[in-house]
Amino acid sequence: MSLPSSQVAATLEAERDRHLAELAELLRYPSVSAVSARRDDLLDCAAWLRDQLEAIGLEHASLLATGGNPIVYGDWLHAGPDAPTALLYGHYDVQPPEPLELWHSPPFEPTIRDGRIYARGATDNKSQVFLNLKAIETLFQAEGALPCNVKVIVEGEEELRADNLERFVEENAALLRADVAVICDSNLYAAGVPGIVIGLRGMAALELTVRTAEVDGHSGVYGGAVPNALHALSPLLDSLHARDDGRVLVEGFYDAVRPITREEREQWSRLPFDKERILGALGVSRLFGEADYTPLERLTARPTLELNGVWGGYDGEGIKTVIPAEAHAKLSCRLVPDQEPEEVLRLIRRHLDRHAPPGAAVTIDFELAGARPMLTPPGHPAIRAAVAALAEAYGTDPVLFRSGWSVPVVEILDRKLGLDSVLLGFGLPDENAHAPNEHFHLENFDRGLRTMTAFWHRLAGARLD
Amino acid sequence: MSLPSSQVAATLEAERDRHLAELAELLRYPSVSAVSARRDDLLDCAAWLRDQLEAIGLEHASLLATGGNPIVYGDWLHAGPDAPTALLYGHYDVQPPEPLELWHSPPFEPTIRDGRIYARGATDNKSQVFLNLKAIETLFQAEGALPCNVKVIVEGEEELRADNLERFVEENAALLRADVAVICDSNLYAAGVPGIVIGLRGMAALELTVRTAEVDGHSGVYGGAVPNALHALSPLLDSLHARDDGRVLVEGFYDAVRPITREEREQWSRLPFDKERILGALGVSRLFGEADYTPLERLTARPTLELNGVWGGYDGEGIKTVIPAEAHAKLSCRLVPDQEPEEVLRLIRRHLDRHAPPGAAVTIDFELAGARPMLTPPGHPAIRAAVAALAEAYGTDPVLFRSGWSVPVVEILDRKLGLDSVLLGFGLPDENAHAPNEHFHLENFDRGLRTMTAFWHRLAGARLD
Repeated sequence: MSLPSSQVAATLEAERDRHLAELAELLRYPSVSAVSARRDDLLDCAAWLRDQLEAIGLEHASLLATGGNPIVYGDWLHAGPDAPTALLYGHYDVQPPEPLELWHSPPFEPTIRDGRIYARGATDNKSQVFLNLKAIETLFQAEGALPCNVKVIVEGEEELRADNLERFVEENAALLRADVAVICDSNLYAAGVPGIVIGLRGMAALELTVRTAEVDGHSGVYGGAVPNALHALSPLLDSLHARDDGRVLVEGFYDAVRPITREEREQWSRLPFDKERILGALGVSRLFGEADYTPLERLTARPTLELNGVWGGYDGEGIKTVIPAEAHAKLSCRLVPDQEPEEVLRLIRRHLDRHAPPGAAVTIDFELAGARPMLTPPGHPAIRAAVAALAEAYGTDPVLFRSGWSVPVVEILDRKLGLDSVLLGFGLPDENAHAPNEHFHLENFDRGLRTMTAFWHRLAGARLD
Repeated sequence: MSLPSSQVAATLEAERDRHLAELAELLRYPSVSAVSARRDDLLDCAAWLRDQLEAIGLEHASLLATGGNPIVYGDWLHAGPDAPTALLYGHYDVQPPEPLELWHSPPFEPTIRDGRIYARGATDNKSQVFLNLKAIETLFQAEGALPCNVKVIVEGEEELRADNLERFVEENAALLRADVAVICDSNLYAAGVPGIVIGLRGMAALELTVRTAEVDGHSGVYGGAVPNALHALSPLLDSLHARDDGRVLVEGFYDAVRPITREEREQWSRLPFDKERILGALGVSRLFGEADYTPLERLTARPTLELNGVWGGYDGEGIKTVIPAEAHAKLSCRLVPDQEPEEVLRLIRRHLDRHAPPGAAVTIDFELAGARPMLTPPGHPAIRAAVAALAEAYGTDPVLFRSGWSVPVVEILDRKLGLDSVLLGFGLPDENAHAPNEHFHLENFDRGLRTMTAFWHRLAGARLD
């Protein structure tokens, strides 16, 4: 039984109006996790989802307490001992909708225009969560069972980057035990180009202080005879990058970077890359980066070191003739296989020590060894199952691609449970996630539903160890 | 009549207790110009001074309105048409006394310990103003007249750097007309080393923005492919100074700088220079600056370009993986003869244009062409009069030296009235001006009184054009 039955297709067709009506109900909850006044809306949204999980046929539907907003849980574990068990992940919280005046329709009044549904949370992440629930419901309706054992968690703090999920996973390891995780919070490669994210960049960050004196001086009294922390900071920060193409000059920074293979390079060169979209989105006149790599390679398969903040001295109105005693910078790195966050931090610390200007003391105020970079082998059985399901639903072979960012849950599930993840999402990069007029293409709602019903059958046939 | 009569010495001796009691009255006013709640205290202090001016024998004692706190005015113009007319300047406002807990005695309860009087305003500037009033009173008491025509102004917003004084001088040019200004708001060279400031540095300042995009980017989405404003800012700021000794690399910056003469260099090399005091005051381990000049030369006869503030991106708690679209810097220059503020600003703008990194736009957000540098010829008749008076009162030849800062009133009087200034003050550099436990050495109160009674006689004999 490796393909969805014709029953499934018929059910999807017959139920579409109800599906969209229910999706609109979900999108109406202003479940903004960043705003404490929305706490009741988050709880209402979570309760609605728990009722949904029960209604579609899952068992143990419940709200599990965390240090913050509850996690919606449900499972169905009757596919038999030989069938794989998957942990399906999504989130019900959304970004704040502001600035409201830029929305063409109110963010919590879902509106369908031009084949898209507009609402805060439309692409990130409610439609993706919801189509997964409807795929499960459809299988129950059409076939009376699921091909796999499934555990569903929908969290309420993804947009917060709180630590509650990590603690929850740690404390509920037995409950969440599975063979593979399916993360429905990602994008297709582009419109008309289905794809699966198989690589994520990792993260390391630190904050530093450059100190040249104990107290600020007055330039009329001391100007000309003492060091200035901002003068010391500039060459130190300048030493981090090559001026011509921005490559990172921290010694050893690229040593652990896995070279891009000829095969990858050749494969990626066939992917569409919309340079104009980037130029337009940021308002930049040209791209900038390592000369030996294409922009797509640089965005996904090459590490970065970005200054995220610099400050020191006086930033108020007018002038203040101060000689600052200290200056500060925050920087963060996107890492790729096989860089280790701790090792990269060590290299940066060493570089800062070596390049500290005379008379200046450099101290590290904090460090964050964040997610490790992730790269799932393309031959992973769950990836093969996803490829087959996408090909079936979209009528074209999906591409395997890497993403430039990190998905914390993937790293947490790997580290805490040893779980591999498949990032099987249906958003598009230009659907205004986190911005006004967020939307989701209904075509991908339909194809996503068909993909997921096919996926569970394909996964049931895969050999996961 | 070129020396003070013996009558003067006797009067000074007899009146000392009364002088100190009156000085304490003046120091008790909490005339903090920065705090609007102190407005009544400022007015009370000004009224007390007006009454003093009348009591010591000046005429037209009055409070002249400005856009802010009033200026105390009084004059005596009966020395005859051949006698010079001097404009004597001081201020009655003081800095805020905070932090109060660091004072050993309350800032507005003047206390004499170890030959010093402790109070906010003790050295900056009330004792200096007051000893000048007592010198005038003493001449009236001992000789029944002054050797020169004198106009006194005591302002109430020196610590504010408000624009009211400039407007007042402009609108009262006839009233303030004089042959020379005597500014009693400066320091001796050091304890036991009387001196006269003959040079002041000028000022030019600007704020710039470096922009590499229209909006900030997310490093997970765009990191590796687009420019970062903070990366562009670092080499631009680094280009302003030589890394080894901090000399300014703006092309043409030093072109107009008048070289230090062999005579000056030789003369300054004999001045005591307390390097340890600077190291201790700022908590720096070593001095830093142009290798070809001594610290004293760098502090007073060489120009500087200091970064006063730098900011861009995220400076809050934790990390934010932003690629900043813009970054900012404030810088200011201390100028020396014959640099012109406007020309220096032009050179800096040109440098910034030439060194703008590719893909980065540099804009100037504001400019300030401040005070022009000042250098009074040592042979100026009023300087010679001051030298003779100091030598007489201190029993040693005073030194002529330059100061590293600007005194706005000197520049205003020069620009608006064409007036030369003599900076004839009696403070010491380590009397905690603007800091807790401000004090004034009573030895310099006594010697200052004797200096000023002698000075007016010396000035009367000088030929001012």
